[in-house]
Amino acid sequence: MRYGADYNPEQWPRDVWHDDMRLMREAGVNIVSLGIFSWALLEPRPGVWDFAWLDEVIDLLHENGIDVDLATATASPPPWLTRLHPEVLPQTIDGTVLSPGARQHWRPTSPVFRDYALRLTQALAERYGSHPALVAWHVSNELGCHNLYDFSDDAARAFRVWLQKRYGSLDALNDAWGTAFWSQHYGAWDEILPPRVAPTQRNPGQQLDFERFSSDAVRDHLRAEAAVLRAITPDVPLTTNFMVAQNVRDIDYATWTGDVDFVSNDHYLRPGELGRDDLSFWANLTGNLAEGRPWFLMEHATSAVNWREVNPPKRSGELVRDALTHVAHGADAVCYFQWRQSRAGGERYHSGMVPHAGADSRVFRDVVALGAQLRDLAPVTESRRERARVALVFDYESWWVSGRDSHPTDALQYDAELLAWYRALLDAGVRVDVLPVAASFDDYEVVLAPMLHVVPDTLRRRLEDVVRDGRHVVTTYFSGTVDEHDRVWLGGYPGALRDLLGVTVEEFVPLLAGEPVRLASGAVATTWTERIVRLAEGVEVLDSYADGDLAGAPAVTRRRVGDGSATYVSADIARAGARGVIETLAADVEALRGDALSAGGRVEVIV
Amino acid sequence: MRYGADYNPEQWPRDVWHDDMRLMREAGVNIVSLGIFSWALLEPRPGVWDFAWLDEVIDLLHENGIDVDLATATASPPPWLTRLHPEVLPQTIDGTVLSPGARQHWRPTSPVFRDYALRLTQALAERYGSHPALVAWHVSNELGCHNLYDFSDDAARAFRVWLQKRYGSLDALNDAWGTAFWSQHYGAWDEILPPRVAPTQRNPGQQLDFERFSSDAVRDHLRAEAAVLRAITPDVPLTTNFMVAQNVRDIDYATWTGDVDFVSNDHYLRPGELGRDDLSFWANLTGNLAEGRPWFLMEHATSAVNWREVNPPKRSGELVRDALTHVAHGADAVCYFQWRQSRAGGERYHSGMVPHAGADSRVFRDVVALGAQLRDLAPVTESRRERARVALVFDYESWWVSGRDSHPTDALQYDAELLAWYRALLDAGVRVDVLPVAASFDDYEVVLAPMLHVVPDTLRRRLEDVVRDGRHVVTTYFSGTVDEHDRVWLGGYPGALRDLLGVTVEEFVPLLAGEPVRLASGAVATTWTERIVRLAEGVEVLDSYADGDLAGAPAVTRRRVGDGSATYVSADIARAGARGVIETLAADVEALRGDALSAGGRVEVIV
Amino acid sequence: MRYGADYNPEQWPRDVWHDDMRLMREAGVNIVSLGIFSWALLEPRPGVWDFAWLDEVIDLLHENGIDVDLATATASPPPWLTRLHPEVLPQTIDGTVLSPGARQHWRPTSPVFRDYALRLTQALAERYGSHPALVAWHVSNELGCHNLYDFSDDAARAFRVWLQKRYGSLDALNDAWGTAFWSQHYGAWDEILPPRVAPTQRNPGQQLDFERFSSDAVRDHLRAEAAVLRAITPDVPLTTNFMVAQNVRDIDYATWTGDVDFVSNDHYLRPGELGRDDLSFWANLTGNLAEGRPWFLMEHATSAVNWREVNPPKRSGELVRDALTHVAHGADAVCYFQWRQSRAGGERYHSGMVPHAGADSRVFRDVVALGAQLRDLAPVTESRRERARVALVFDYESWWVSGRDSHPTDALQYDAELLAWYRALLDAGVRVDVLPVAASFDDYEVVLAPMLHVVPDTLRRRLEDVVRDGRHVVTTYFSGTVDEHDRVWLGGYPGALRDLLGVTVEEFVPLLAGEPVRLASGAVATTWTERIVRLAEGVEVLDSYADGDLAGAPAVTRRRVGDGSATYVSADIARAGARGVIETLAADVEALRGDALSAGGRVEVIV
Repeated sequence: MRYGADYNPEQWPRDVWHDDMRLMREAGVNIVSLGIFSWALLEPRPGVWDFAWLDEVIDLLHENGIDVDLATATASPPPWLTRLHPEVLPQTIDGTVLSPGARQHWRPTSPVFRDYALRLTQALAERYGSHPALVAWHVSNELGCHNLYDFSDDAARAFRVWLQKRYGSLDALNDAWGTAFWSQHYGAWDEILPPRVAPTQRNPGQQLDFERFSSDAVRDHLRAEAAVLRAITPDVPLTTNFMVAQNVRDIDYATWTGDVDFVSNDHYLRPGELGRDDLSFWANLTGNLAEGRPWFLMEHATSAVNWREVNPPKRSGELVRDALTHVAHGADAVCYFQWRQSRAGGERYHSGMVPHAGADSRVFRDVVALGAQLRDLAPVTESRRERARVALVFDYESWWVSGRDSHPTDALQYDAELLAWYRALLDAGVRVDVLPVAASFDDYEVVLAPMLHVVPDTLRRRLEDVVRDGRHVVTTYFSGTVDEHDRVWLGGYPGALRDLLGVTVEEFVPLLAGEPVRLASGAVATTWTERIVRLAEGVEVLDSYADGDLAGAPAVTRRRVGDGSATYVSADIARAGARGVIETLAADVEALRGDALSAGGRVEVIV
Repeated sequence: MRYGADYNPEQWPRDVWHDDMRLMREAGVNIVSLGIFSWALLEPRPGVWDFAWLDEVIDLLHENGIDVDLATATASPPPWLTRLHPEVLPQTIDGTVLSPGARQHWRPTSPVFRDYALRLTQALAERYGSHPALVAWHVSNELGCHNLYDFSDDAARAFRVWLQKRYGSLDALNDAWGTAFWSQHYGAWDEILPPRVAPTQRNPGQQLDFERFSSDAVRDHLRAEAAVLRAITPDVPLTTNFMVAQNVRDIDYATWTGDVDFVSNDHYLRPGELGRDDLSFWANLTGNLAEGRPWFLMEHATSAVNWREVNPPKRSGELVRDALTHVAHGADAVCYFQWRQSRAGGERYHSGMVPHAGADSRVFRDVVALGAQLRDLAPVTESRRERARVALVFDYESWWVSGRDSHPTDALQYDAELLAWYRALLDAGVRVDVLPVAASFDDYEVVLAPMLHVVPDTLRRRLEDVVRDGRHVVTTYFSGTVDEHDRVWLGGYPGALRDLLGVTVEEFVPLLAGEPVRLASGAVATTWTERIVRLAEGVEVLDSYADGDLAGAPAVTRRRVGDGSATYVSADIARAGARGVIETLAADVEALRGDALSAGGRVEVIV
Repeated sequence: MRYGADYNPEQWPRDVWHDDMRLMREAGVNIVSLGIFSWALLEPRPGVWDFAWLDEVIDLLHENGIDVDLATATASPPPWLTRLHPEVLPQTIDGTVLSPGARQHWRPTSPVFRDYALRLTQALAERYGSHPALVAWHVSNELGCHNLYDFSDDAARAFRVWLQKRYGSLDALNDAWGTAFWSQHYGAWDEILPPRVAPTQRNPGQQLDFERFSSDAVRDHLRAEAAVLRAITPDVPLTTNFMVAQNVRDIDYATWTGDVDFVSNDHYLRPGELGRDDLSFWANLTGNLAEGRPWFLMEHATSAVNWREVNPPKRSGELVRDALTHVAHGADAVCYFQWRQSRAGGERYHSGMVPHAGADSRVFRDVVALGAQLRDLAPVTESRRERARVALVFDYESWWVSGRDSHPTDALQYDAELLAWYRALLDAGVRVDVLPVAASFDDYEVVLAPMLHVVPDTLRRRLEDVVRDGRHVVTTYFSGTVDEHDRVWLGGYPGALRDLLGVTVEEFVPLLAGEPVRLASGAVATTWTERIVRLAEGVEVLDSYADGDLAGAPAVTRRRVGDGSATYVSADIARAGARGVIETLAADVEALRGDALSAGGRVEVIV
C-alpha cells in the first residue's frame, strides 16, 4: 500500500528537508509526488536548466527509502515564458485574457506552450528516467482544472480541426447542430468559432461539441507528454491525477483511462452531512473508471481545504475514515496534497500531513496512525473489486447537457440526482457499481440510470438488451430526451426510451420554487414532474401524483418484459423517494434487497 | 380572424412539409410568417441567392390556401457576413464584442450591416412582391430584442448625430445633461460617447438620451427596410413584431406605431398567479398603441417557453383563455411561435402548435379546437375597441427613469406599480384603457397615472386640463419628479404636479427591507413612503400613515377643483391598497364603480 | 467652529448665487469648499483658462464673510483630456477600460494625467494664492474613491518601481511572496504584473503589496499636488478629504496624516440601528488619525444619500446628533456635501443644506439651528482630545488580509468585529480610543486588538511590552496569524501571539451557515471557532465551548503576567459576548469599568 503526498521541498529551506525525511519515516510514507510546480526553478531562463536541487532531493528521498512519482513539472509555466509569449494565455468566453500570477495559465491548444512543455518533459525524462527512486511519471497536474475552457483563436483553430475529424463534412455538422435555425448555416469551416459570448442562447450542438473538444484538448496534452516519456522510459508507468469529483463536471474521464498506465484521482471532501456518501460515490466511480483494477488516490486532504466558502477541518476520526473509504473502493495508494502545509502562496490554508502547528499535533498523530493501519492493509493491495449486481450509470455528457440553459428549468442537478439514488441504495444496504455509461452492462442484474438525458441509438439498444435478457432497468425524469447532438427525439418523451419504458410523456412540468408536489406514496417532488399521457399495455403504475395539476396521473411506472422490467420515475423524488422505489422493486428483484452485512444501511458494504 | 404561426420549414425535411400542410388545414391555419431566420439559406454566399426552396414552400402554402406574412429575413446574419465584417458585431457596455452563434448579432447603426440587409430586403421584395400568397411584410424580427444596447464606435457616431438633431447646440446639451457637475462640460461633439462603463454613476441625462437613441436606432432600421419595401410593393402592408411585454422595457413602441401599417405584438405568459392579469395588461396597452384598431398577435406560446428560470407548460384551458384574451383586447390574429416545435437549436424546448409529441397530443387537439373557435369569432374582426372611461397612463420613459441607479431606493418597479393598479381596477370590475402617455386624455373621466415620474411641462398642463374640465386625476409616489432630461423639478415634490395635487413633499422616505409601514386604512407600504409637509387649502386627507416615522402624517390626499379632483397616493400600497383608494373615490366618481357584468372582479369586462 | 459645505455654484444660474449668500449668512456658514469639479469650466480647452466666473464667486463669498477652502479641481478631468489622451483611463482587473461620463476616470500613475493636473494646480495656486478669502487648499477630492485599483500598464510600471524600492532584490521579493509555490519565481523585474484576473487564486503577497502600492499611488498624487501648492503658497494649509468609513477599506490613511496640514474626513451615516455607533467609531478613529488634534469634517449629509440600495432620510434630530457626534470626537468643522442639492447629475438625490424643496423646509431649518449651536460651541474649538485609558487597535492591513480569498471561511468581517467590540465598550460605558496600529500603546491601560491578523515581529514585541508593563492586551480569533507578507507564522496559531497569550491553536474551525455554537457563558459564535489544544502554565479559561465539536474545550482564555494580562477570545461572539468578556475582565481591570457618566451605556462619554 502506497502512502504519501505531494512534496514541495522548494518551498522550504534545506534544514527542513532533513526533518521531513525523519517525519516521513515516522509516518510510514513510502512515496511522494515531486516537482509538480518546479518549472520556474528547473528552467530559470529559457533553455537553461538547474537540476542540482532536485538531484539532491531525489537522492535524499531514495536514501530514506521513499519512492518518487516524478512530475513533468509543466502544470504552471514560469513568469519568463508568459512574458516572452503572452499568446499562450487563455481567454475566457468574453475575450478576457487570463493573467499569470496563479497557476495553469496556458492554452491547452497553444503550439508555443506545447513546445516548451515537451522540452521540459524530455529534459526530466532524460535526467531522471533511470533514477532508482523513480517509480512513476506524474504527467502535468490536474489537467484542465482552471484552463479547460479557452476561447482563444488557438482554440478556434483546434476546434475546427477536431470538428473536421468528427463530421467529415459541413453538411453533417450543419445537420448535427441544427443550423437551419437562426440562420447559422456554415458555408466554410473557418466560419466556425468557439461558442463565445453571444447576444442570447448559443447553439446547443456547438456548445456540446466545444465541451467534448475542450475535454479532448487537455487529454491531447496528456498524450503529447506521454509520448515523450514513453519514448525515453518505456518501462516507467505514467499517470496523471484525474479529478473525479462533484466540483469537476466538464472532463470526460471515461475517455482518459486508456491514456494512463494506472488511474490516479484527487478528491476533496464536501462539507456537511452528505460529505461521506459523496466521497464514496466518486471513489466508487473512480474504481470503475479504473475498470476494477487498483488505483491511486493521488490527492486528498488531511483536514480543511482553502477554496470553498467555508472550510471546516475534519473531525477526529474522519482522516482515517476518508482514507479507508477510498481504499475500500480500490485505492492502493493514499496520498495527500501536501506533505507540509505551505507558509505562503494561494494554498497556505490548505491542510497538509504536517500542519502549521508542526508534528506535535493531532493531525500528524492521525497521519502516523493511518500509516500503521495502511501497513496492516498491505495484503489487500493488488486486489480487484468484485463486481456488484447493481450498476448506477454515470454519464458525463448527460451531466453537461441536462444542465444546459434554455431548458424547462434551470434547477436540474444531474450530480444531485445521481447521489440521491446512490444514497438510497446505501440506505437500503445494496451494493452498487457507479459505472461509466460506456462500460458493459452485461453482468449487472439491475441497471439504474437516473436522468440519463443523452441517449444515442446505441445506448438505447444496450438498455433494451438488458430488459430483453430478463434483467432490470430503472431510469428517471428527463432521460432519453436527446441524441448525441442534443437534438430532441421526436414523438414524445422520454424519447429514445419511450418504447422500452412503455410510457409517453407529452410535456415536462417543472415546478416553481416553493411549490412542491406530493405523490401517493408520500414522496415529494420539488423541481420536476411530467405529464405521462399514455402507457403501453400492461405497464403498471407504481406511484401517482397526489396533488397539483397532475393529481391522479401516473408518476412511477414499470413495464415487465418476461423476467425483465423497465421502471420510470418521472419526478425528482430525492433520496427518500428513491428508497421507496427500490424497496418496491426489491419485492421481486433480489439484487435490490439489502446485504445482510449492511445493518440497515448504517454500514456501506464494499467487496 | 387570422390564425397561424412562424413557419420554419427549412428546419425539416421535405416530407414533413406535406404533413405540415395537412395539419395546418386541420387546425384552420390561414397565415404563416415565413423566412424569419432564412438569410443563411437564401444568400449562401455574398450576393449569391437561392430562392428555389422558398419558392416551393410559398407555392405549397398557396396551394393549401394559407397566406404568407413574409419576413425580410434580416434578423440574424449568416456566418459569412460576420466573418467578412466582424465590425458589425455589437459591443456591450464594457467593450465586450458579442460573437455570432446565437442570433441578432449586429449593430443597429452599422452602415455595413444596413447595406447587406437592404440588399436582401430588396431581393425578397422583387421576387415575392406579387406572389398571390403574400399578404404582408414582416420586417426583420423582434428588432432590438438582443442588440438594442450597442456601445460600439458606430453607435457613438450615430448617437452624436442624433444628439445634434435633438439639441442643435452643445450649450443646450450641456444644460440638459447638467454637465456642470463632475466636470463633464462638452466642448466638442466628438467628445461625447455612449454611457460606457465608468468608475461610478454615469450621467443620468446621457443615459436617458442613449436609451431614447437606442430605441430610435432600431426603429431607424425598421424605417430603412420599410422604405425599400414600400418603393417596390406600395400596396403590401408591412408590420414588425413589437414586444409589448413586461420583459421588454427599453423600446418606446409608442413612437413606432406610425411606422407600420398595422401593429403586431409578441407576448409570452408570465408564470404564476399574476400571469393572466399581466397578459391582459399588455394586450390592453397593445390595443391602445394600435389606437383602437385591430392588431396582430404575431407570437405567443401554445404552452411552455424555454428562456425563464422555470418554464411550466400551460394548464388545460389556458391555451384558449390566453388567445381569446388577446382577441378580446383587439387582436384580429392569433399566431404562435412556432408551428412545429424545433428538434434542435436554442429554442428546442419552446412549445409549438405541433409539439415534440406530434399531432396526437393535447396541445395539438387544443390548437385544432381553438382554430374552430376563431372561425366562429369571424364576425368580430375589424371591430374597433370601445374606449373605456378610465385611462391607466403608461409611459416608457417613466419606466426607464424611475428604475435608474442613484435613486432613493433600488426597489422601485414601475411595471409592478402599474400592474397593481390595473389589477385593482379589474378587482373592482372597472374597465380601463392602458394608454400611452402621448395619447389624448380628452375622452377619459378618470386619468390614473401611477408613478408618472417624468413630467415635462406639456404633460403637466395636459393633466391640469383634465381636472380643470371637471374630470379626475389619480397619481402615486415619485410622480412629477423630473423633467424630460431627468432634472428634478425644484420647490418640493411631486414637482411638476405639486400645484395640481395641492401637496408638497419635502423628502422621500424609502423603507428598508423588512420594515413595512401601515396606513390607517390597513393598506401596507413596503418600499416607499413620503413626508408630505404641506397641503394646499381644502385638500382632503383620504388616508394617513399609522406607524413608522411618519405616523399621523397624510398618505393619500385629494384636491377638488369644481367637479374635478386630483388624488395623490404617496406610498406603494399594492393591489389591495389601490383597490381601497378606487372604492373611496368611487363614492363620487361614477366611472370608478364596477360594471354590473364584472361579477365582482371575477370576470374581466372588455367592450 | 467652521460650518459649511461643498459649494458648486457652476451648477446654478447667477441669480441663485445671491440667494445662496443670503441663506449662507442665515445659516451661519463661514466656509465653503469650492471648485472641486470645475476643471472643465476652468480650462475649457487645453491650456486655455477661464477664471472669470470663479473670481466672481470668490469675491462674492469674501464680501459675505465666507472663507474658501479652494480645491485644486483635479478630481474629474474634462472630456477633452480623455479624448486627447485615452491612455489616462483606468483599467479594471480584467482589462476593461473605464470610460469618462462619471468622475475620477484617471490612472493615479499616469504621467500624462499628472502633468495636466499639476499645471491646473499651479494655475489655481498662482491666481488665488493670495486671495483674502482663501484659508486652505483642498487637494483633489476623495482621492482613490473610484480609481484606487488600476491594473493598466502604467500601474504595472509604477508597481515595479515601488517593489524595487521596497525589496531591493528579487530574492527578497521571491521570498516574501513565496513564489517557490506554483512556479511563480521571478527572474527579472519586468516579469512582475499587477495581480490581474488569473485562472485561480492569485498570489497573496502580490495582492497585499498591490494594495499597499495602490494606496501609496494615490497618496503620491496628493504629494505631487501638495508640492506645487507649498512651493507657491507656503503659508496656506492644505488638506485632502479622507474617507475614513466602513465603505472605504482599501486606503491606509494612517500613512497619510503626515502629508496634510490638517486631517479632513468625509463620512456618511449607515442606515439602520448600527448607524450611530458606526459613525462614532469612524469619527473616533479619525480623531486618532489626527493624533488628537482638531480635524475637519469635510463632508457628511444633512439627510439621505443616493448611492446605497435604500437611502432613507435622517429622522428629526439626527442632523444635529450626527454633526455633534463628530464634534465630540474632535471635529472643529462641520461641513456637508453639498450646499444646494443638485437638480441634475449623478448625485441629484443626495441631500444638501438647501434641499430640492428649498429654504422653507425642515432640513434648512435644522441647518440654521445647527449653525446657531455651533456658534455656541466656539469655545471648544482648538481643544485636543483627552486620551482614553483603553485603546481599540485598528489596522487597515489586517482588514485587507483577513478578508482575502482562500481562507478558512469567506465570512470574516474585520470591520464588523471591530464595531462589535466598540459597541460592547459603549454598552459598558467605557471610553475608548480607536487607535491606528502604528500609534503608541504606551499610555493605554488596556489594548484591545480584535482580529489583529497581520502581526509583524515589531508589533508582536509592542504587544508583549504592554503586558510586561503590567497592562492588558485583549485579542480575538484569527489574530497573529501572518507576518507582513501574509505568510503564516508557524508552530500553531495565533502565531506571533502564541507566547504572549499562552495559547496554542491547532486548527481553525469555521462554522457552516446556520450552525452556530454556544459557549458556556451563553455567548454565541456564528462563523468562527478554534480548537485550542494547549494552554501555557497558569492560563485561565474564562469561557469554554458548550456544544459542537469543541464542546468542553477552552474558548476564552487569560494569561496573567505580573499585574498584566493577555486575553484571547477564539470565537466571533459578537457585541453581547464581547460585553461579557469586558465585564469579566473589569473585575480587576479598573479601566474597563464604565464611567459614572455613561448611564449604563445609554450615553457615549467623550472627553
